[in-house]
Amino acid sequence: MDERTALRALAADLPGAGDDAAVVGAQVVTTDMLHESTDFPSGTTRNTAGWRSVGASLSDVAAMGAAATAAVAAYGAPSLDEDELRAFVRGARDVCESVGAEYVGGDLDTHDEFTVATTALGDASDPVLRSGASPGEVVCVTGALGRSAAGLRAFEAGDAERGNELFRFPPRVESGVALAPYATAMMDSSDGLARSLHQLAEASDCGFAFEWDRLPVHDAVSEYAADGGDCREMAAYFGEDFELVFTVSETDLSSVRAAVPAPVTVVGEVTADGVVAGDGPVPDEGYTHASEG
Amino acid sequence: MDERTALRALAADLPGAGDDAAVVGAQVVTTDMLHESTDFPSGTTRNTAGWRSVGASLSDVAAMGAAATAAVAAYGAPSLDEDELRAFVRGARDVCESVGAEYVGGDLDTHDEFTVATTALGDASDPVLRSGASPGEVVCVTGALGRSAAGLRAFEAGDAERGNELFRFPPRVESGVALAPYATAMMDSSDGLARSLHQLAEASDCGFAFEWDRLPVHDAVSEYAADGGDCREMAAYFGEDFELVFTVSETDLSSVRAAVPAPVTVVGEVTADGVVAGDGPVPDEGYTHASEG
Repeated sequence: MDERTALRALAADLPGAGDDAAVVGAQVVTTDMLHESTDFPSGTTRNTAGWRSVGASLSDVAAMGAAATAAVAAYGAPSLDEDELRAFVRGARDVCESVGAEYVGGDLDTHDEFTVATTALGDASDPVLRSGASPGEVVCVTGALGRSAAGLRAFEAGDAERGNELFRFPPRVESGVALAPYATAMMDSSDGLARSLHQLAEASDCGFAFEWDRLPVHDAVSEYAADGGDCREMAAYFGEDFELVFTVSETDLSSVRAAVPAPVTVVGEVTADGVVAGDGPVPDEGYTHASEG
Repeated sequence: MDERTALRALAADLPGAGDDAAVVGAQVVTTDMLHESTDFPSGTTRNTAGWRSVGASLSDVAAMGAAATAAVAAYGAPSLDEDELRAFVRGARDVCESVGAEYVGGDLDTHDEFTVATTALGDASDPVLRSGASPGEVVCVTGALGRSAAGLRAFEAGDAERGNELFRFPPRVESGVALAPYATAMMDSSDGLARSLHQLAEASDCGFAFEWDRLPVHDAVSEYAADGGDCREMAAYFGEDFELVFTVSETDLSSVRAAVPAPVTVVGEVTADGVVAGDGPVPDEGYTHASEG
């Protein structure tokens, strides 16, 4: 059973599940577990691991349109080496500081495999869910897609410095907060753009039509992509990116562009059903966490 | 490096560390990572694992004198079996309900070793720290000690039903909240009573003197203890219990007993320095998380 199937099976026990973060009063809270074999390629520094793992939770807070307030991390590793730990904590602290949140520590655990579990909190009186998109609106993304796919290729090519740089992504917290008054539905692109659109479509009971050539593709993708198909794979399917995917009314677009610090690209529009790109249907494929399960 | 040494090394980077939970505004937040090889003996059900892992974080909230509001868990296992997952979620939800908190879900991860990371939140405008004890006060514990040591023995003896029952401990959240106006220092007994007293002594710059025969020992300990020395080991050193260890002024004792729903036992008094029991010094030994690192 993969993660989505498991989550559906649990829906009756967890009525609040299904968004990037859970809503508790005027707060949002989200947790993520990452580990070496699937999330930290060889060459990933502990500093990058701290930044990236805490950043993934901050991105979930951002995807709710919430202001991140604090984060914690539980760090499990075969040995608790002081330099590695310090590097991890500094990465975690730095990514929190970059979005105005406080890193308040966590837990240490001796664990056969390097494993990190992070939790982030945010304030939002009116969080943006995945369920509010309506046909006629436009669908947009912040920043550029494919950064993490390119980072993985860099690690695989032995360029750890470049890989680490690409893996330390900017969580879009400030943009998420700025989008909150306008976005009708929002999530982050951690499962890949294709899968994100399918999830927004399911939650909002709508569809999407986008154009491949409108996708903002990260500069690093062209360095590593073998051809146009591979570029598409890296930008739209691979996932593990942390950009915001959101829908807004076209009339709000100029306000959105003025308010949001990250680049905003309109990639398509909300339709009645189906997820299609210029040349046909877009499969619901991408990075499904725990898909090997 | 064990967990305490590592935490000391990180103190400069994490000025807020050192209590059972971190304080963020009027909230406390705490996170824990548990995994099969060290925390879930063979025979532990997923329901018990859910109760116990989330309960451990709720206990840290209780130890701050805070009202638990919500918890999340990240669940990592070799396969995401629906029945196991559902049992885990129900255990997590039930322990939250038992203390008036809301279980709001979490993350799923395929992981070679069954691993759980939990985070709990609580409200406290004036949290109880480890640092407020003064000589002349008394030191008390809630409930009875040795429950988890007895549970482990039950699992080892093949009595999984008894082991699971003992492992599903009651987090002392209601008692912690009731203690908040009175307790001058508090923590939970997850590292064992001996080590807890050493940690309170270090944080409060004081000492403790207690009597072995005043310790409230869980009924199940006598079922499994080989002799008196083993009983002491199980009740005071083994740890992984989740009772509250706290100091109060003797004049507040009757108010404390009236306010706190759990049994309260005075085990000794706060002194100027050293941790001693009737027959000599008490070593700073017990369960140190990650001590094998």
